[in-house]
Formats: sequence, structure tokens, C-alpha cells
Amino acid sequence: MTENTVEPTSLTLLGLGAMGAAFARAWLAAGHSLTVWNRTASRAEPLAADGAAVAATAAGAVAANRLVVVCLLDDDSVEEALAGADLTGRDLVNLTTSTPGQARARAEWARGRGARFLDGGIMAVPPMVGVPGSGAYCFYSGSRDLFDDHRGVLAVPAGARYVGEDAGFAALHDVALLSAMYGMFAGISHAFALIREEDIAPKDLASLIAEWLNAMTGSVHLTAEQLQSGDYTKGVVSNLAMQVAGKTTLLRTAEEQGVSPELLTPFFALMERRLAGGHGAEDTTGVIDLLACTPA
Amino acid sequence: MTENTVEPTSLTLLGLGAMGAAFARAWLAAGHSLTVWNRTASRAEPLAADGAAVAATAAGAVAANRLVVVCLLDDDSVEEALAGADLTGRDLVNLTTSTPGQARARAEWARGRGARFLDGGIMAVPPMVGVPGSGAYCFYSGSRDLFDDHRGVLAVPAGARYVGEDAGFAALHDVALLSAMYGMFAGISHAFALIREEDIAPKDLASLIAEWLNAMTGSVHLTAEQLQSGDYTKGVVSNLAMQVAGKTTLLRTAEEQGVSPELLTPFFALMERRLAGGHGAEDTTGVIDLLACTPA
Ligand SMILES: NC(=O)c1ccc[n+]([C@@H]2O[C@H](COP(=O)([O-])OP(=O)(O)OC[C@H]3O[C@@H](n4cnc5c(N)ncnc54)[C@H](OP(=O)(O)O)[C@@H]3O)[C@@H](O)[C@H]2O)c1
Ligand SMILES: NC(=O)c1ccc[n+]([C@@H]2O[C@H](COP(=O)([O-])OP(=O)(O)OC[C@H]3O[C@@H](n4cnc5c(N)ncnc54)[C@H](OP(=O)(O)O)[C@@H]3O)[C@@H](O)[C@H]2O)c1
Repeated sequence: MTENTVEPTSLTLLGLGAMGAAFARAWLAAGHSLTVWNRTASRAEPLAADGAAVAATAAGAVAANRLVVVCLLDDDSVEEALAGADLTGRDLVNLTTSTPGQARARAEWARGRGARFLDGGIMAVPPMVGVPGSGAYCFYSGSRDLFDDHRGVLAVPAGARYVGEDAGFAALHDVALLSAMYGMFAGISHAFALIREEDIAPKDLASLIAEWLNAMTGSVHLTAEQLQSGDYTKGVVSNLAMQVAGKTTLLRTAEEQGVSPELLTPFFALMERRLAGGHGAEDTTGVIDLLACTPA
Repeated sequence: MTENTVEPTSLTLLGLGAMGAAFARAWLAAGHSLTVWNRTASRAEPLAADGAAVAATAAGAVAANRLVVVCLLDDDSVEEALAGADLTGRDLVNLTTSTPGQARARAEWARGRGARFLDGGIMAVPPMVGVPGSGAYCFYSGSRDLFDDHRGVLAVPAGARYVGEDAGFAALHDVALLSAMYGMFAGISHAFALIREEDIAPKDLASLIAEWLNAMTGSVHLTAEQLQSGDYTKGVVSNLAMQVAGKTTLLRTAEEQGVSPELLTPFFALMERRLAGGHGAEDTTGVIDLLACTPA
């Protein structure tokens, strides 16, 4: 958070849902001049009371400032909201969740209408926004110049991390991290299910899981080294053959405990496919290659 | 690691595979008197050179000391190795990987043969064993008296954590943590697959994943509170309805990037089932209940 060092800036924000409103409050609290617009006008009222200028139309809000931040539901709502706006000379920052493909297409679209474009992916929930030390941040990708020009004000609600000129990279990083997280949630769900009927306090298991997973996240660096070198046997401690043998205990335990193995079996199946391909001395990294399928 | 404060102890170890040998070396290095046995006798030679007494038979090794630690391949090999041994008055500690059911049955079996029994689950790989600060530890469950009597010497190769009188609990904790880890590995694999064909360095994504997952492991404590209270709406920030809506972007991104969604879809399917059950205001915790199936 850099609110103390940023020049007061004038900017526009379209979209005052849970996330947009949190961004708006953070900018207002830091003394920036904010023009807001929301499809349902009533949602702008509390922000007007906090000093925001309220535009009657999206086009009017866009006309008010060079820097225009958009935080709407989805890419379709961005299309709809900006349909009548003149984007010439604007710096458009789109915090609306998109796929990499949508972000790339939206960047083309914006450039075609005379705007510089930056896509953003928000790695936070609204209560973390504008809270120093909360860890909230956004990935940004697209126009490096736009990012450099507005970096300070962008970093007020949440940390700003630039990940490349390719407008799709912010979304790609965002989705990659969320995907990793859902995998972790799946594993954690299975773990809790195993003890559901036992005399073990969930909070005791929780502490052990958190400690163990924190220790194990470090393995991601070795995976990256293996991917970069192409040598998946590099630094291996428990090889694929050992791990495939070891999964039997995990699956039997699930069966004994009356827990469906459905959250674990897809990964084990890929481990087995890779092992069957003659890669028993490798780490599990080869699973990543097996996930590549024909693009739609 | 408590090697400096433990009285020199006399103990027996059956099994000198990768893990057994690491335990043996740690005990010898800490000045304990160790009698070892291994089915393939040659594997005992380097340990004999380091001061271990080598028994010709498993029965002989068991006869040599009250405290007998077993670290063999699997439960069947424990049965086979101990078939001819007199366990009367022994303190049997089984570090061989077992299911909770196998550990409970083995505890019964040991008690029937006059021994106290403690099951162990090793949360480490051999290079971590005997290395202070490596984080290596074992879960132990079963006889509390046995654990209390031998806690010091047991804690020499790896930290010792007692998790209950139920002999199955060490294995249950072990498997729960490994299961959570495989879920996390699955998620991480998907994340790396997404950037496989892009100009993004795996090591850069690795650092972001590690940081993100470390921040997200904290959610396990809220999950535990929700499980304990039975109120899965407690402290919810992104509810199930929002998360089910959000998964569309994750699945579309996988499709755009040519990545099979097979590692994520089972968790999403359970989220949808729970949502369809009218639980949209909850966290994803209800997925845990859906994993309960009829025990075999
Ligand atoms: N909330 C989170 O935890 C979170 C986290 C990371 C990223 N995000 C992303 O941030 C963005 C906003 O999320 P949110 O939580 O603020 O959502 P929200 O509370 O549901 O708000 C949605 C916003 O989009 C507007 N909108 C929807 N359809 C529209 C249309 N066709 N034309 C114009 N405006 C339209 C809504 O206007 P009305 O008020 O008129 O309905 C509202 O301002 C989303 O892309 C979301 O994925 C959210
Ligand atoms: N290595 C790890 O990373 C790790 C991590 C956590 C837990 N563990 C657990 O620790 C235990 C030992 O693992 P390890 O890595 O040491 O395995 P290992 O290197 O494969 O050694 C297996 C040991 O079991 C013995 N054995 C196998 N079948 C036997 C039988 N029928 N009768 C007598 N002895 C028999 C082998 O004797 P021979 O020398 O005669 O073949 C050898 O001593 C396993 O339960 C494993 O799951 C290992």
C-alpha cells in the first residue's frame, strides 16, 4: 500500500458491486478524486456521501477522466456498459474477471477504439481491499506504459504486480493460482472427511494440515526447476514408482473410513499413466505433460 | 530432536531399507545401543561398521531388547518377519506404513502376544531423518505408557507426536496429511499445465503459487470451526453460489489453454451438488459431507 506517497489523482470507476465498492472506498480514503457509475444508481449513494462524484451514464463517467477502471460482473457486462462510451485517449484498466482469451480480445477492442489497455486479476476478497498488510494484490498485464503511468494510484486498494505485455497474462496468473488453490481445497476436504466419524477434533487436524502443507508448498520450486530443465528426475526423493505403490494405503484408508476417493483418483490415475510410460524414476512432474489435450 | 538429553538406551530395529537405515544411523550417532536385523543380511553391514549389533534372525533381534522398532515394507512383511518371535513383555513400535484398520488389527495381535504396542506414521523422507530442524516427525498412537516410557529415544531420529490411544490414529493422521498434499499437488500440476506453452518462467509462477497457497492454507482453521459448529455459513467471504459461478472462468481458461480439467472437475461437481441442495450461502465445507459414502 502506497497511499502516502501517491499524488492525488482523478479517476473513474465503473461498477460498484462488492469489489468495486471496496476499491472505491480505498481510493476515496486515500484522498483521490473519484467519479463513479453503477448500473443500479442507488449503489452509488454511500460513495457520494464519502465524496465521490456520481455520473449518470457510463459514457459520462468515462468522459470525466483519462484513467478509467472497470470492475463489473463479467466480460459481457463490460461490452454492454462501454457500448456508448468514447474511449479515445483513455487508459482503460479492466479488473473484471476474464479468461486470458477474453482479456486479449478486450485489449484488441480497446486499442481499436483509441485506448491504452491494462487487464487486472484481483487476488483478494473485498474485506482485504484497502487494508495495509492484508496481502491483497492484483496481477496486471497489457500496456506497460499505462501501468507505469498509474502504478501508484492502482496500488492503493491492493498491491500491483505487472506480469507482462500479453494482456492475457494477468488472467492466466489469476486462474493458475485459483486452480492450485481448488486442488488444495479438494485435498483438505478429503482429509477432513477421513476423520469425520472419529474422535479427532477438526481444529487439531487443521493445525497439522496447515503446517504440513506450508512445508510441502516448497516442492513447487523443485517442480519448476524440473520443468525448466526438462529433467524430471532432478532432485527426486520419492520417485513415481514409490508414490504409485504408496497410494494404495491412501485409497484403502479412504475405503475403511467410508470416504469416496473421487477427489484423489484423477491425480493417481495420471501418476499411473506416467509410470506405465516408463517414467518410474521421475517425480510426479510428468503429470503436467499429460494434462495437455487438444485445444478446443 | 532431543539426542542430548536422552539416556543411552538399548533397542532393536527390524528393517534396514532406506527409512530403517536412516533411523538406525540417527540412533547410533546419538550413542544408543542398537541391535538390527534385515532380511537381506548384507544391508546390515554398514551399520555394523558404525557400531550396531547384528542379529542373525528377527526372533533373536526381538529377544535382545525390550524396545523393538519395526520399519518394513508393509503390514504383511511385519506379520512374516515376526512370525517366529516371542513378543512377551516387548514394547513393539511399528513404523511400517499401515492403514488405520491394519494398525488396529496389529495392535490387537501384539497385545494377544503379550506386548505393548505403538503404531507410528513417518512424516518425512529418509534424508530428513536425524537432521535437527528438518521438520521430520512421526505420529504415534496406541499405548500411552509405551510412548511415555520411550518418548526420548523415539524422538531422536524425528520428532514424536502422540495422537491418541486408538492405534489407528497415527496412520489416519498420516494418510490425512498425505491426501491433502496430493490434492495440492494436483492443483499445482494444473496451474503449471496452464502456462506450459506460454512465455512465463515456471520459477516465477512457482514463487507466486507458494506464496498464494501459504496464504490460503489458513482457511483450514475456518473450515475446522465450521465443521465443529455445524454452521457452514460461519465467517464465509465467498459463498458457494459465487464460487460455483466463478469456476466457469477456470474451466474456460483450461479449455483455451488446451489443458484437461480432470484434476479440478471432481471438486467442482461436488460444489455444484451441494449448491443444488440449497446451500448457496455456505462455504465449500459441505463438500466434506458429500464425500461420505457407504463403507465397504
Ligand atoms: N467479490 C470477490 O470476492 C471477487 C474476488 C476477485 C475478483 N472479483 C471480480 O470482481 C468483479 C466484480 O465482482 P463483485 O464481487 O463486485 O460482483 P457483484 O457484487 O456481483 O457486482 C457486480 C457488478 O457488475 C454490475 N453489472 C452486472 N451486469 C452488468 C451489466 N450488464 N451492465 C452494467 N453493469 C453490470 C453490477 O451492477 P448492478 O449493481 O446494477 O447489478 C455490479 O456493479 C467480478 O468480475 C468478479 O469476478 C470478485
Ligand atoms: N522411504 C520413504 O520416503 C518413506 C516415507 C514415509 C514412510 N515410509 C515407510 O517406511 C517403511 C519402510 O520404507 P523404506 O523406504 O525403508 O522401504 P524399502 O527401502 O523398500 O525397504 C523395505 C524393507 O522391508 C523389508 N522387507 C520387505 N518385505 C519383507 C518381508 N516379507 N520380510 C522381511 N522384511 C521385508 C526389506 O528387506 P530386504 O532388504 O530384505 O528387501 C527392507 O528392509 C515403509 O512402510 C514405508 O511406507 C517410507
